[in-house]
Amino acid sequence: MFWIAFVIFLAACFGAGATGAMFPPGAWYRSLNKPSWTPPDWLFPVAWTTLYLCMATAGARVAVADDNAIAMGLWALQIALNTLWTPVFFGLHRIRAGMVVLGCLWVAVAAAMVALWQVDWIAGALFAPYLLWVTVAGALNGAVWRLNPEVARAGGAQPAE
Amino acid sequence: MFWIAFVIFLAACFGAGATGAMFPPGAWYRSLNKPSWTPPDWLFPVAWTTLYLCMATAGARVAVADDNAIAMGLWALQIALNTLWTPVFFGLHRIRAGMVVLGCLWVAVAAAMVALWQVDWIAGALFAPYLLWVTVAGALNGAVWRLNPEVARAGGAQPAE
Repeated sequence: MFWIAFVIFLAACFGAGATGAMFPPGAWYRSLNKPSWTPPDWLFPVAWTTLYLCMATAGARVAVADDNAIAMGLWALQIALNTLWTPVFFGLHRIRAGMVVLGCLWVAVAAAMVALWQVDWIAGALFAPYLLWVTVAGALNGAVWRLNPEVARAGGAQPAE
Repeated sequence: MFWIAFVIFLAACFGAGATGAMFPPGAWYRSLNKPSWTPPDWLFPVAWTTLYLCMATAGARVAVADDNAIAMGLWALQIALNTLWTPVFFGLHRIRAGMVVLGCLWVAVAAAMVALWQVDWIAGALFAPYLLWVTVAGALNGAVWRLNPEVARAGGAQPAE
């Protein structure tokens, strides 16, 4: 049962991850002023693949446990918000709306980590790198906002007609 | 516990639903050839709001039950794929990729309905209108593909630079 659940949670992660392939950073992202500590491009897919394996393991461990209601709700919430961020930021170029989504995602991931930990501490610990990465992503989104005030004020591009 | 879980699952639904506000149909969708049975625009938000209430109720009912591992995994999978479809179709104008996402979503919703039903038949029944609506959406996506071969072949717009 654990492995079936693991595969399903991993599929949910790769559903979210499909946004990375369909909304690639592209010329717009390259043109932005970015902070000196911006992670190199190659690190993003490596980090996400690792995080997906951790997230799916955490989800499956808690799914087969009892008293998992809140943890399972929060796992679903974070994957929906995770899927939302990339199209908003890289698709619409909406830096401020992206910040709002990332803020919500950070809260959801932190709450999920606590709820998972209460059921199974290993599952909670598996969410710690994810929370760290979302913190970095949030700091990067915030720095991009600060360093590109004109772009942020423009409110992003309309989707191509 | 049911109500806390309900609010969390509903938040996940509205996270997915935010795509509808951020990637509105717009001029591109209006310009497409659509079948005679296309639902009117006002029906989409009404239908989705109703479905979200059903989906959150189903999720929370099964979250507080035992032996919910597969159902909870599939609930998370469907909300990720649900969040993915709108940016792909309305954001990128990728009719064929949208069809692939909708096909995956249909399978996930059907599987979730069965898995929820095995835990709690009311929860399974609450997913039936959702499966019906995704079937309609899939037929519409397919008809748009058939009726707009040039647009579909173009493979969609690039995100605005």
